[in-house]
Amino acid sequence: MNTRNKIFCLLAILITQSAVSQSLAPREVPAKTIPVPSTVSPQMQAIIAQPLRTNWDKPPTTPEGWKQLSDGIATTVAPLIPAMSDRMGVKVENSTLNGVRIYTITPNNITPENSKRLAIHVHGGCYVLNPREASLPEAIFMAGFAHMKVISVDYRMPPEAYYPGALDDAMTVYKAQIKLMDPKNIAVFGSSAGGALTLEMMLRAKKENLPMPGAIAPGTPMSDVTKKGDTFQTNAMLDNVLVSPDGFCDAATVFYANGHDLKDPMLSPIYGDLQGFPPTILTSGTRDLLLSNTVRMHRALRRAGIEASLQVYEGQSHAQFYRDDRIPEVREAFEEISIFFDKHLGK
Amino acid sequence: MNTRNKIFCLLAILITQSAVSQSLAPREVPAKTIPVPSTVSPQMQAIIAQPLRTNWDKPPTTPEGWKQLSDGIATTVAPLIPAMSDRMGVKVENSTLNGVRIYTITPNNITPENSKRLAIHVHGGCYVLNPREASLPEAIFMAGFAHMKVISVDYRMPPEAYYPGALDDAMTVYKAQIKLMDPKNIAVFGSSAGGALTLEMMLRAKKENLPMPGAIAPGTPMSDVTKKGDTFQTNAMLDNVLVSPDGFCDAATVFYANGHDLKDPMLSPIYGDLQGFPPTILTSGTRDLLLSNTVRMHRALRRAGIEASLQVYEGQSHAQFYRDDRIPEVREAFEEISIFFDKHLGK
Repeated sequence: MNTRNKIFCLLAILITQSAVSQSLAPREVPAKTIPVPSTVSPQMQAIIAQPLRTNWDKPPTTPEGWKQLSDGIATTVAPLIPAMSDRMGVKVENSTLNGVRIYTITPNNITPENSKRLAIHVHGGCYVLNPREASLPEAIFMAGFAHMKVISVDYRMPPEAYYPGALDDAMTVYKAQIKLMDPKNIAVFGSSAGGALTLEMMLRAKKENLPMPGAIAPGTPMSDVTKKGDTFQTNAMLDNVLVSPDGFCDAATVFYANGHDLKDPMLSPIYGDLQGFPPTILTSGTRDLLLSNTVRMHRALRRAGIEASLQVYEGQSHAQFYRDDRIPEVREAFEEISIFFDKHLGK
Repeated sequence: MNTRNKIFCLLAILITQSAVSQSLAPREVPAKTIPVPSTVSPQMQAIIAQPLRTNWDKPPTTPEGWKQLSDGIATTVAPLIPAMSDRMGVKVENSTLNGVRIYTITPNNITPENSKRLAIHVHGGCYVLNPREASLPEAIFMAGFAHMKVISVDYRMPPEAYYPGALDDAMTVYKAQIKLMDPKNIAVFGSSAGGALTLEMMLRAKKENLPMPGAIAPGTPMSDVTKKGDTFQTNAMLDNVLVSPDGFCDAATVFYANGHDLKDPMLSPIYGDLQGFPPTILTSGTRDLLLSNTVRMHRALRRAGIEASLQVYEGQSHAQFYRDDRIPEVREAFEEISIFFDKHLGK
């Protein structure tokens, strides 16, 4: 075939592909009034009934604005921690580990099988929110429900540090711990950005030839921050936490990325090589904007031959499975993760 | 407290509960144009792009009308079976077993570990549709992808027989097989109404003190036909197969139930006692109208302490995971179930 014919052929192929692509008609879904489901606990019904997050579409536009928002959340959460710790029967202490700020959460009753185990927690908040005490609830729930010691990484966030500052801090803690104990006795967990960081830590550990932990629990992970995934559309304006792919969380991630390619597996771990990952349990909800991010990650892990377990909770929006320890579905979610950890961690 | 005061108190409680219930505001979701996701194979994109099922809201209104619709589907599917069987490398034979119509699907290559195993298939179709050859595709895919012998039950359906005719026929086949082989070497599977029948068979087996099979695979089961479940609303007009909780499938189920209480666990198995169920793998999709039916069943099984695995596929509507054997996600779904069966069945 001569060059001219080749070009004709290429054009023909391109036109055909374009026609195929155009023939994929979108679905026109009419406006709906969706009641709070009767199939969850009254406490979860109250959470589901909450209106869309205030200012979901008005993210801060300056570093100072982000810092103010982030500090405000920590100030709101801080007074809730003592009663929460009492209910969960845990003690919370803050310190630094090789320069990284951490909290150590120690349950009053550590079960014998957990006596030599540790869970490392990386909090959520779109890489920018939930500093200090705001990072604690998920860590406290895990320590309390699983009866396991937890170290929560209060990693640096913008404007203090940009990509990959959060990941660096989490790795510092992981590296310190694998020197002190068998990596197989360590779990790593976290949700949303914390779920992504959990997965990114595994990619980084592989890159640095570090051993894998015994198990990980990424909750509704931001595994793809390029806005790909069907539920970014189908659950938009339904999820009352993230609300939309064009909301505050994506703006925060761009702020953290600081110009770095969002498709880099260290920001969108679904594009990473998942071979050799530890057993993984993923958690999401049917209204979660990141349900696709979660099930796509689950499938990618399974295709890589990884033992991976998926839990999806009825009616829940993004990360509501750790909204409040007094909700039956929250206890259920942590007990499920705890069973998975117990099955896969060394003793 | 005297009777009058008690009545006042009861009234006060009722009024309070009503107020609480009313305060749970529904979510107002605007109309949306939802593109076909880029995160699935081109073949699955074509399936997702199909318009809403024709006449989804115009079910037949007479027994003859249902029979005509049902026969029409069988007539459409029948000519596809030979090529499908060739592609999957299986042989299909029909016969009767203790008066029940069955198909036996035998792969050309049965793997050694499957040589003493059998999968019993109960097809979907809202208890009324998919007779004869229309029942076969899912059974053929399982036989072909899992390299395992399958018996598919072409159970009686209305107007030939009403509730519990379908379940009776499936049980007749199960009872015949457990006399011939170790029940632990048997799997039971099916989707939609077939998923519900799979679960109902376990409840019936318990009731009749029969042994459990080694594993079951209910796909997107009609585990609750009382229209409870959040995705009946959230995925309405998005799922292009079932479309709405007020569509043909619910009308068909009412036709089958023939006046029987829809909340009976033999029609809505989620309300049954799940203790002692065999290991269970459930499959659904993010656009599935029965996603809630699936995840609620998964959680109910887990709460009953059953080993239960959940698989949710990106962008798929109801039962699209067995739409066509040439779609990569279909192979993936059956290979996942096959791995689960191999792990849990006896040899």
